[in-house]
Amino acid sequence: MSASALTIGFDADDTLWHNEAIFERVHERYRALLADYHDAATVDRTLFATEMRNLGLYGYGVKGFTLSSIETAIELTGGKISAEEIQRLIVLGREMLAHPVELLDGVADTLTELAGAYRLLVITKGDLHHQERKLALSGVAAHFRHVEIVSEKDVGTYAAILRRYAVEPREFLMVGNSLKSDVMPVLALGGAGVHVPYAITWEAERVETGPAASGDFFEIATLRELPAVVRTWAAGRVQ
Amino acid sequence: MSASALTIGFDADDTLWHNEAIFERVHERYRALLADYHDAATVDRTLFATEMRNLGLYGYGVKGFTLSSIETAIELTGGKISAEEIQRLIVLGREMLAHPVELLDGVADTLTELAGAYRLLVITKGDLHHQERKLALSGVAAHFRHVEIVSEKDVGTYAAILRRYAVEPREFLMVGNSLKSDVMPVLALGGAGVHVPYAITWEAERVETGPAASGDFFEIATLRELPAVVRTWAAGRVQ
Repeated sequence: MSASALTIGFDADDTLWHNEAIFERVHERYRALLADYHDAATVDRTLFATEMRNLGLYGYGVKGFTLSSIETAIELTGGKISAEEIQRLIVLGREMLAHPVELLDGVADTLTELAGAYRLLVITKGDLHHQERKLALSGVAAHFRHVEIVSEKDVGTYAAILRRYAVEPREFLMVGNSLKSDVMPVLALGGAGVHVPYAITWEAERVETGPAASGDFFEIATLRELPAVVRTWAAGRVQ
Repeated sequence: MSASALTIGFDADDTLWHNEAIFERVHERYRALLADYHDAATVDRTLFATEMRNLGLYGYGVKGFTLSSIETAIELTGGKISAEEIQRLIVLGREMLAHPVELLDGVADTLTELAGAYRLLVITKGDLHHQERKLALSGVAAHFRHVEIVSEKDVGTYAAILRRYAVEPREFLMVGNSLKSDVMPVLALGGAGVHVPYAITWEAERVETGPAASGDFFEIATLRELPAVVRTWAAGRVQ
């Protein structure tokens, strides 16, 4: 088996580029907008509850977040929020969608290095239009053979993607900032996972217990460390 | 070449199930909400202009529509719309997302008949999460070998999908209600197109001039007529 039969999947938000940091800045402005009515903890808790309640209908992404933020603001002000303030929330959502794509440290170098020897995929969840837009603006799209934008990242999703590209689980390594969405379902399938924590983890992505230590599970601090991990992993696969 | 090498693509909204009719009922309630401020034509024109202005950032789908409808309402009332009325728009958007999927006439029978002899695909644009949800609720998902939810349906999109599934354009027939998105790009690639007009065509899907008459372009009134068209088309492809 040559190294080129090996496939590496990359999550996008908070793995290739900053995302939660943008949400966090919006949260700060949101708390300030509602500061006359409620303390920050109440605002955060109520907004998160609205997001989770709407997730089944809205799915992930900025547009659903914006709608949930408007709904929460109406609720938390007892309907006293003005149309002008709601318009500010719409503009805030649009600023998130239009935000420049800022690659994380080491991403461009690492992708350039790995793309020559491995088949690279993007596997990301969220809003189709926004994710395609960010990838187009990222400057690194050409390194990826295929892009899969999915509505949920669970074992079934990864199994379908590997089937689609005729990849054996043991020839697949997934890289991402979420243990829940990027690492654990791939380990469950018999693939390998690399966890690259981001400074902020969205509450919905947190897990109580991470994966057990194993030869298929790696943890690194930045994507700069990925080529060395890939060499170790690939060495175990060449027969 | 056996008939089973032939592939048929189906658009989803207004081809497999009702969609514009749901938007139209929402438009009626929207005009009523703003009737104290503006006549129906002004409301429609302003909302459409907002949608088109936001399309590059929002893409297609109900969530972007809902955000545009809130923005337009604030604009058309000079900020006088109440939070309670805005909450009604959010609920209206949610009702669209939760709306039952109503198949169009002949869809279930036709798909059952064709799925045995041809490879069937769904190729639809719009919101990933909502389209997946509708397909899951439709009761006809099992007939489709693959589902492609894309952000735009142009020549490049179709070319990429045909490459992905190793389908020759002359072995591909696309069925849909939009000449612009379903028929013309496929004809341009050398495939065949079947136009099934829906009662309402969204303004953004209208074309000045349809495709020229040719042996690859068919027009039918309902999906009940599709098996006969497919037989004619397939007969020309068996060598």
